[in-house]
Amino acid sequence: MAKDFTSREEDYSKWYNELVMKADLAENSAVRGCMVIKPYGFSIWESMQQELDRKFKATGHTNAYFPLFIPKSFFAKEANHVEGFAKECAVVTHYRLKNGEDGGIEVDEDARLEEELIVRPTSETIIWNTYRNWIQSYRDLPILVNQWANVVRWEMRTRLFLRTAEFLWQEGHTAHATKEEAIVEAEQMMNVYADFAENFLAIPVWKGTKSANERFAGAIETYCIEALMQDGKALQAGTSHFLGQNFAKAFDVKFTGQDGKQDYVWATSWGVSTRLMGALIMTHSDDNGLVLPPNLAPFKVVIVPIYRKEEECERVCAKAREIKEQLEAKGISVKLDDRDTHKPGWKFAEYEFKGVPVRIGLGPRDLDNGTLEVARRDTLSKESISQESVVEHVEGLLKDIQANLFQKALKHREEKTTKVSSWDEFKDVLENKGGFILAHWDGTPETEDKIKEETKATIRLIPLEDDYKTAGKCVYSGKDSNQIVVFAKSY
Amino acid sequence: MAKDFTSREEDYSKWYNELVMKADLAENSAVRGCMVIKPYGFSIWESMQQELDRKFKATGHTNAYFPLFIPKSFFAKEANHVEGFAKECAVVTHYRLKNGEDGGIEVDEDARLEEELIVRPTSETIIWNTYRNWIQSYRDLPILVNQWANVVRWEMRTRLFLRTAEFLWQEGHTAHATKEEAIVEAEQMMNVYADFAENFLAIPVWKGTKSANERFAGAIETYCIEALMQDGKALQAGTSHFLGQNFAKAFDVKFTGQDGKQDYVWATSWGVSTRLMGALIMTHSDDNGLVLPPNLAPFKVVIVPIYRKEEECERVCAKAREIKEQLEAKGISVKLDDRDTHKPGWKFAEYEFKGVPVRIGLGPRDLDNGTLEVARRDTLSKESISQESVVEHVEGLLKDIQANLFQKALKHREEKTTKVSSWDEFKDVLENKGGFILAHWDGTPETEDKIKEETKATIRLIPLEDDYKTAGKCVYSGKDSNQIVVFAKSY
Repeated sequence: MAKDFTSREEDYSKWYNELVMKADLAENSAVRGCMVIKPYGFSIWESMQQELDRKFKATGHTNAYFPLFIPKSFFAKEANHVEGFAKECAVVTHYRLKNGEDGGIEVDEDARLEEELIVRPTSETIIWNTYRNWIQSYRDLPILVNQWANVVRWEMRTRLFLRTAEFLWQEGHTAHATKEEAIVEAEQMMNVYADFAENFLAIPVWKGTKSANERFAGAIETYCIEALMQDGKALQAGTSHFLGQNFAKAFDVKFTGQDGKQDYVWATSWGVSTRLMGALIMTHSDDNGLVLPPNLAPFKVVIVPIYRKEEECERVCAKAREIKEQLEAKGISVKLDDRDTHKPGWKFAEYEFKGVPVRIGLGPRDLDNGTLEVARRDTLSKESISQESVVEHVEGLLKDIQANLFQKALKHREEKTTKVSSWDEFKDVLENKGGFILAHWDGTPETEDKIKEETKATIRLIPLEDDYKTAGKCVYSGKDSNQIVVFAKSY
Repeated sequence: MAKDFTSREEDYSKWYNELVMKADLAENSAVRGCMVIKPYGFSIWESMQQELDRKFKATGHTNAYFPLFIPKSFFAKEANHVEGFAKECAVVTHYRLKNGEDGGIEVDEDARLEEELIVRPTSETIIWNTYRNWIQSYRDLPILVNQWANVVRWEMRTRLFLRTAEFLWQEGHTAHATKEEAIVEAEQMMNVYADFAENFLAIPVWKGTKSANERFAGAIETYCIEALMQDGKALQAGTSHFLGQNFAKAFDVKFTGQDGKQDYVWATSWGVSTRLMGALIMTHSDDNGLVLPPNLAPFKVVIVPIYRKEEECERVCAKAREIKEQLEAKGISVKLDDRDTHKPGWKFAEYEFKGVPVRIGLGPRDLDNGTLEVARRDTLSKESISQESVVEHVEGLLKDIQANLFQKALKHREEKTTKVSSWDEFKDVLENKGGFILAHWDGTPETEDKIKEETKATIRLIPLEDDYKTAGKCVYSGKDSNQIVVFAKSY
């Protein structure tokens, strides 16, 4: 399978597209910009959902569901919000079709909506309109709600998982009595995302805040996690917004405090999407296909029985089932592929391409010797071990692979993170090395815009750590700067 | 809370609406016909989803995701299908908004789609258009895919959960090499739904097929499960369709068989929706609010500590936590409500209204006596038991409640199922007793239409059992009949 597969060196972008298609993750649909998430791809997304959902519930959140459609007038209520989303909205104008005169089917002009409906690009407006009825006093706060949903943003240039007109995501929307509590919540969710990215997806991320230019439309502060892909471009993997009282004011959501005084409610929102699938692929995969961290893999181990004769088959498959049961008893998900429609060599290539962390091969000779062959996907190394030690060995291996993938990605990021002090150096690093560039910035949107125009690099984040709050000169304008920020080209 | 709550006797319809709102299950949104599913309601839906998803996977299905939008032309490809759905479609015509001259926001006429997109009312067309590329040979079959999704059907008269413009559901779409295999699949999924309804939701259901009039638009045969609500009206709780080769022909999906010959692929589709929430409520709930079967309840037990003085609080709450841990160690989900913002009496009423199966009350006197008070929601009975026996007692109680709710609903259905042999009797039973009516039918759509016109009763299902395949005279036309079918008014 890997033979007619483009390498990263050859054409990184083509490598990505081919990988997504050939590993059965997703494909383009008949609807411009909308993707079909195929069963194998979806099972990986389900792993992500389950773990995130567990983390959200562990931090006190519950799920709910709000309408797909948003009345057009709701958008106009928060000025920055509409500015940010108006240009990419799918608009529903009619509610009926009818038979056309030519025998085809057409929109029934008699069924025009009084007010057009927007297919949600994000749900702040419809949710804050709902919260108005849920909140009277401080006793009703906080509201800690999350929604798993599909959203639509009519992007002109789309790419599977990374940028699609429709995508799947979760969006948390919380309401609080105080500013401080809302900020703590927004920061908490950034940390939840970072923990998820690093310990589950094995993707090292940098935490920070966005510059005003890159902030969510309607937010006071946007917290983010940023990852670095193998081609040296950054990818925003999750955001958490402190919305202040902007949406409460737009939708008139007030509460009576313990002191009897009325005030507007404080808000946060936070989300990650199927974009994480793109981050996952571009962090770990290689020229042999997908590489999955064990914590995430739909099945962590695949067992491929090897045999020629019918009577070998029975013996080998019986042993394979026994090993499967032993591993499953320890909570390790195992796929046993004993189909006789495909040869072992084909299966080896297939599961390698699909990124299964550990592959076990088992043949008649292994049965005689009490051995089996274990291959790990991350290093492609193989070894023969005793059947008796299989559970212990695989448990150790899965931990190793998880840790190794993270360390490898971290090493890559560290190698591709460069501190620069001159504009020439900035351009040189960006052009020839790529990755994250640490540089002083004067804090103005004007300078940020000019850097973007000249180089396509943007400020990915403003680090939270004090180490970066130092005095210096802006790498572009030469003006005084009090912070080092992180630049990169990005997805 | 229950004081200002309408009884079923008073006004069944009002009782339902108030229950849905006051038990925090759902509410109407600002968008006509679309609902907000509130956190408590959604947690019940999540219980249903988890159990169904487990059952789908146990029968070999995997999840995937297909686009929200369907090109208008796709609908025209299957004649019956478009006929069934065209009149209730939300249509996307534009993909951008712009600032209007009056300072408001308006649809940008320059951003009109070449072909309008329909918000999916169901996904057969977009999925079969996709399957065309997935299927070449018999080796690619069967495809056993399910999707959890939102769908939109522009209903004119809506009711929370029962009939909403947008609802949540799952839709299975399978592809098979033979007619027989597809029929087995369609029947299997009807049985999965029936098992789920009876053993998880404690709702007795009748299995059967639909008459031609009531069949899914595009199906050859529709299998269904039908439940009977407390007001004597039927509710279709799930359907599974054998689609023949209709969609394969419409979308040109062929496969090469083992014999080398080409043929069209055979299809099924099957779904249940948030409508099940309506069925659940109307089967078990009473004039004191919601009643939840333990298998489904987000938390099966609530513990309410009772105390007056601060120092009592510590003792009582410590014991309450201990009991919570004991129950949770046995896998029983428990909520301990030790908030001091609400009084025990308020909490008792609240959890009774929200249908929590078992309530445990614990006060200082209980601590002295080594006792606690256990109340069951289904019968509203209370008893004092020893703390030592709490785990055993609650385990038994939960089983009892689950079984009791099913038996109670089954008894109700049996009492409200009447076999009639004359038209006068049919009308009398329908008018004065309601429920399922068993009667001979001549098998013609004309007779079915006339019965519906005169009485609003429809054929809910044609039973599968041989007992009902007997000769007789049609209750309406007097013509020869070879089957007894089940009539009812329905939701």
